[in-house]
Amino acid sequence: MKHTAVDVIRTKRDGGVLSDDQIDWVIAAYTRGEVADEQMSALAMAVFLNGMTFTETSRWTQAMIDSGERLSWPVPTVDKHSTGGVGDKITLPLAPLVAACGVAVPQLSGRGLGHTGGTLDKLESIPGWRASLTSEEIHDQLLSVGAVVCAPTDGLAPADRKLYALRDVTATVECVPLIASSIMSKKIAEGAGALVLDVKVGSGAFMKSLDDARELARALVAIGVAHGQKVTALLTDMSVPLGRAVGNAVEVAESVEVLRGGGPSDVVELTVALAREMLANTELSVDPATVLASGEAYETWARMIAAQGGDPEADLPQPNTVHVVTAPRDGVLSRLDALSVGVAAWRLGAGRARKEDPVQAAAGVLCHVKPGEAVVSGAPLLELHTDTPDAVEGALAALAGAYEITDEAPARTPLVLETIRG
Amino acid sequence: MKHTAVDVIRTKRDGGVLSDDQIDWVIAAYTRGEVADEQMSALAMAVFLNGMTFTETSRWTQAMIDSGERLSWPVPTVDKHSTGGVGDKITLPLAPLVAACGVAVPQLSGRGLGHTGGTLDKLESIPGWRASLTSEEIHDQLLSVGAVVCAPTDGLAPADRKLYALRDVTATVECVPLIASSIMSKKIAEGAGALVLDVKVGSGAFMKSLDDARELARALVAIGVAHGQKVTALLTDMSVPLGRAVGNAVEVAESVEVLRGGGPSDVVELTVALAREMLANTELSVDPATVLASGEAYETWARMIAAQGGDPEADLPQPNTVHVVTAPRDGVLSRLDALSVGVAAWRLGAGRARKEDPVQAAAGVLCHVKPGEAVVSGAPLLELHTDTPDAVEGALAALAGAYEITDEAPARTPLVLETIRG
Repeated sequence: MKHTAVDVIRTKRDGGVLSDDQIDWVIAAYTRGEVADEQMSALAMAVFLNGMTFTETSRWTQAMIDSGERLSWPVPTVDKHSTGGVGDKITLPLAPLVAACGVAVPQLSGRGLGHTGGTLDKLESIPGWRASLTSEEIHDQLLSVGAVVCAPTDGLAPADRKLYALRDVTATVECVPLIASSIMSKKIAEGAGALVLDVKVGSGAFMKSLDDARELARALVAIGVAHGQKVTALLTDMSVPLGRAVGNAVEVAESVEVLRGGGPSDVVELTVALAREMLANTELSVDPATVLASGEAYETWARMIAAQGGDPEADLPQPNTVHVVTAPRDGVLSRLDALSVGVAAWRLGAGRARKEDPVQAAAGVLCHVKPGEAVVSGAPLLELHTDTPDAVEGALAALAGAYEITDEAPARTPLVLETIRG
Repeated sequence: MKHTAVDVIRTKRDGGVLSDDQIDWVIAAYTRGEVADEQMSALAMAVFLNGMTFTETSRWTQAMIDSGERLSWPVPTVDKHSTGGVGDKITLPLAPLVAACGVAVPQLSGRGLGHTGGTLDKLESIPGWRASLTSEEIHDQLLSVGAVVCAPTDGLAPADRKLYALRDVTATVECVPLIASSIMSKKIAEGAGALVLDVKVGSGAFMKSLDDARELARALVAIGVAHGQKVTALLTDMSVPLGRAVGNAVEVAESVEVLRGGGPSDVVELTVALAREMLANTELSVDPATVLASGEAYETWARMIAAQGGDPEADLPQPNTVHVVTAPRDGVLSRLDALSVGVAAWRLGAGRARKEDPVQAAAGVLCHVKPGEAVVSGAPLLELHTDTPDAVEGALAALAGAYEITDEAPARTPLVLETIRG
């Protein structure tokens, strides 16, 4: 049967279920440019408002995978994907840690948008480091170092790349079938032997409620299973920033601390929890906590950064302006809102509003005190870093009401909330 | 407040009501090209699925009027708009008739799409006639002849022109707020002193049910009233083709018969009914039925055609292929489906699937017998005209089941079903 964009849009507009054939055709024709952006955005809005069944979402994912190449690797591999959060630098210690434990990690990663940071933006604060590698360079580095964190190659799920950019400007982002198919098409095309998903929950995450996050996690896992992908999802807390550093260079510095056996306990805890899941399906009996504490993972990190042109020992960029927010009273920090800190870091220059905007390497927020920790009046609470001093006012506005100091310590919430296995 | 396309789309996507300010901004920015087609199509789909209130629709109409110029005329004027049907050539006899009665008619008209014909396509079958006039030519002709039927000037509601083309390719056509604002923005910008709307109901019309047509008619009239426009809507039957001719040149020929005092009774009846409404708010006591029967309106027609370069006495294009469908039995034609005949004429070449496609001047269908008329076995029932003989098969397929011959005459349905006054 011959399809037209109007017929496909009309089917979904009228609440119907798209056939396999319609989905295959519309994604392929969109990739070729035969279905125009304005037609795909109308379809995306119809999907947003009328939904897709699991069968449709799974087929949509397959069609996006089929729009490009499916990678394969000469060694056993495993990967992690996070749905994005504030201070979420976990990939930086995690990829070299898992590689140091003996399984290769080929992570094709992304950039930040809005208040959530991007792994490539963070790594680019390291002098000389480059995100773009050829397929050959990726293969070589995977064999020689065991870990690669770089930009996706052009041939990887090009339909998703087009659609992702389109959704961003047409208010069709927050839609489980479109999010799930976008994530899984890239990750399945990437070809890792197993995949662990870190689905964030809370103010600083895309999904604010546990129910919504669980719905997304289940969709992601089910799509993976339907495509023969080994996949596990952890639901993890994102109501508080991860670690003490939020930004680009500051997160690299904190990751290096973790790789050297130190660093904030929550970053260490989540890195180890994810590493254990990534290694769960292997024969390896090594304990990632031991490897991390030993500093061995740092050696892999240093080789990984150097292989991509970066100097792992170089000084990281420093901001020209530092503004310190002090504690207004004695007590215990009982709340520190992830979204507010993320927006502050974004306004300071660490993030971007549009995908073509640049980011500042040195911009960000340091959280001197984390929830549960004591503070005395006048002591530093938050430290704002920026190269654009005018941005401090907007960052402070974002932080109004973002924290609370009380007499009693808050109840401790667990970092890993649930695990969903495929 | 500074708006963004994403904020406006999100408001409507989430079921909210767009503010006046949001509507003004998004229409103006779309006209300027700052809001992209893919953003407007996402918004149109959100409007399609979540609707607009009357207040929103009225403001949207105003914003589209404000995107261009609002015309004004040196003499009293009145206009008619039809929502489109099969064999609906009424503008051709009506405009010169009303002008002959003493009120000028400046009709900026459109082209056909799908199974419904377009006034300009029909008139272009007259050798030499041209649809595009400058504003000055329109003014001059209105004063000298009293009637102008031509293409809209570029400055008339440019936002609607852009949006109309976009809706056509994004399955966002069949939506009352978007239809109503499209029609009324053009007609209010056109500046006629009064407006009569012919809202078609039935298989050959856009609105298949009386309820849907009434909803559209009420929306159109209410928008007109809100903008100070004198406006009346007639709901008229479109379950059967109007007259005996469906196509381009064949409809011109039939219109000329009517203008000369003859022609099919339904065409005469509707032309006179609409003329009476158009003249209802004037001081004129002339009866359009008398003027039409006298042949006076033909003189105005001839001057109107000549003023736009056409030869009113020229032979009209003839098809190279004529295929006659004969009656399978004796009896009375009890049904002749407007949509089927419209689709047959379209397939024969009288209509177009896409707005850039050409149409055949000589293509169309002649209905030798209309419902309620007797027919004998073997006598001509329908006559198919085309310049592309291969098209006959598809036209015949469209006509399968389109008519019925019975022993009893069918109940006669009235042509004008309801009148809604502003």
